[in-house]
Amino acid sequence: MTVPSSTVSDRTEAELVAIIEAQLAPPPAWLTIGIGDDAAVVEPARNRLEVLTVDALVEGVHFDRRFSPPDAIGHRALAVNLSDIAAMGAEPRAALLSLALPGDLPLDDFTEMTAGFARLATASRVSLVGGNLTHTPGPMMIDVTVVGTAKRRQLLPRSGARAGDEVYVSGTVGAAAAGLALLKQGALAASGSGRPSAGGVRSAASGCIDRYLRPTPRLRLGMLLGRNRAATACVDLSDGLADAAHQIARSSDVGVIVDAETVPIDDEARAWFDSHAADALVAAATGGDDYELLFTVRPRLRNRLRTVAAQAGTPLTRIGVCTSDRAVVWRRRQAGGTSDEPMSLGYRHFK
Amino acid sequence: MTVPSSTVSDRTEAELVAIIEAQLAPPPAWLTIGIGDDAAVVEPARNRLEVLTVDALVEGVHFDRRFSPPDAIGHRALAVNLSDIAAMGAEPRAALLSLALPGDLPLDDFTEMTAGFARLATASRVSLVGGNLTHTPGPMMIDVTVVGTAKRRQLLPRSGARAGDEVYVSGTVGAAAAGLALLKQGALAASGSGRPSAGGVRSAASGCIDRYLRPTPRLRLGMLLGRNRAATACVDLSDGLADAAHQIARSSDVGVIVDAETVPIDDEARAWFDSHAADALVAAATGGDDYELLFTVRPRLRNRLRTVAAQAGTPLTRIGVCTSDRAVVWRRRQAGGTSDEPMSLGYRHFK
Repeated sequence: MTVPSSTVSDRTEAELVAIIEAQLAPPPAWLTIGIGDDAAVVEPARNRLEVLTVDALVEGVHFDRRFSPPDAIGHRALAVNLSDIAAMGAEPRAALLSLALPGDLPLDDFTEMTAGFARLATASRVSLVGGNLTHTPGPMMIDVTVVGTAKRRQLLPRSGARAGDEVYVSGTVGAAAAGLALLKQGALAASGSGRPSAGGVRSAASGCIDRYLRPTPRLRLGMLLGRNRAATACVDLSDGLADAAHQIARSSDVGVIVDAETVPIDDEARAWFDSHAADALVAAATGGDDYELLFTVRPRLRNRLRTVAAQAGTPLTRIGVCTSDRAVVWRRRQAGGTSDEPMSLGYRHFK
Repeated sequence: MTVPSSTVSDRTEAELVAIIEAQLAPPPAWLTIGIGDDAAVVEPARNRLEVLTVDALVEGVHFDRRFSPPDAIGHRALAVNLSDIAAMGAEPRAALLSLALPGDLPLDDFTEMTAGFARLATASRVSLVGGNLTHTPGPMMIDVTVVGTAKRRQLLPRSGARAGDEVYVSGTVGAAAAGLALLKQGALAASGSGRPSAGGVRSAASGCIDRYLRPTPRLRLGMLLGRNRAATACVDLSDGLADAAHQIARSSDVGVIVDAETVPIDDEARAWFDSHAADALVAAATGGDDYELLFTVRPRLRNRLRTVAAQAGTPLTRIGVCTSDRAVVWRRRQAGGTSDEPMSLGYRHFK
């Protein structure tokens, strides 16, 4: 006889909230009223603007419970929002967590998921101040709102680039896309046999899988770029490097040339793409989920950028330049010169 | 030959955002960066605390597309959040809209839904400053975050009631529950024949149906209660009067006696409950969705409350009193005296 395991529908909403509250760091002094009232009340930070962002993860679209452990889902839901805050040059401060849960969600999965959220919140000095819990007859959905703060002069909008600015990207790209592909492959191979055993693929490219499952938002880099006024425009790579380049071009009314050979593709990811007959550059640039930052810098501020890179401890790579036309292109070196081709996006339609 | 109607999946995310932007009032001066960047940036209101709330509507749980018109869904998604802001004594200011949409959602329904949201936002002087759009393979979900402001002294927490305070409710209760029941009945009667024709039930109790579909949050009343320091504790009736009474009792560590005969049940709702052999009081108190305010007042401040009621233009009814024990009860008058019975909640488990 087996004991049936608990699900969230065996608990009251208050009991589920209590599980979350037990996972949180002590409330900060600026939190006047926290979880449990009609709304949360906070004291604004002095002499700061407020930065607001919301992002949702939907099961079956943004994550798959067959291969994303619950704690990684909770981590990701917060990380994608922190990445948006980082891309504005701001510091995160408060979060709201809105969960739509299937009634048969195991209570252990709920607890691990909120623990993953809470650990990243604590590490990032973000306080969960409120939220919402509801049942859903459909896929799980996690919607997170983050409130950050920034001085006006340290904001990094998308619209500040101008012709001649150099284009940089942090870290490496492509790892998350390769990680997701590896996880899908593992799930496929294991289909019909219960939970996938991803042991084989994990050892082959565990770095990529970690990058996909538990992305690290570039909070420190974003703040330093803002504080030092080192960048003119900045976006995160949530939808891929190609999309990010187009966003800056459109918002700043410039063109972007990216030197194809300089794009810092993750080594493991490149090996995986190469072995699967994919164009590594296109796969890495359109794959998304990397949560690196793409930003533009006035050439005369290179020294300032060097200081920021050292303080942030983040590798930065110059990959291109902004132009006065509005084309966004890959530049490839060839015998006798270069050729430019339009940088296509991975997908365009709402789906 | 019929022309197939458009769905949201025929459009890009940018096109859907443009539809929403065209429906909005001009941006306020305090909006530094609006829709279209990684995050929105706002200037905080001076000398005010910030009030944050999030609430989600899930199709099949909080609304039914068979009988909720799209504009009513958009209206409700914002209204339920404004009600939380009102219950804090605060003023709403900015909103974030996070939509998870099925790909086959007709474009017209999308446009009407966001128009319903935008109209209430404009009427309530709330600016939509950002949001998120995603596809979902499941039911539609609308998650709204609202940021409001309040001076510290005008906040209305749940925890301020003490023994001897009188308990008031705004407006009438039960209408939304009756309206929902009527709509369900209409949908049932019409099942199998396409869209329900609710003409018959609408004429019988159209007020209840409107109260359910397009609730009016008590923003002005909440602000006036806060500004005049007329109430000691306040909650909204999103989960019903009985739940609200329990919330204040638990948060304030008091008991609550509600005089059953004084509860202002909506006339049409009472007639409907009576004709369906339901206990009108229990049905009205546990039905939820009324978005009235339940609040407590020191007896010596009755005059102040009268001024607030006149300014707000909202009927207020004294329905009970706070006690020093922790019981939450209905008091019913009987031959020779009164009898108290525990006030049960409509539901307790997460489902």
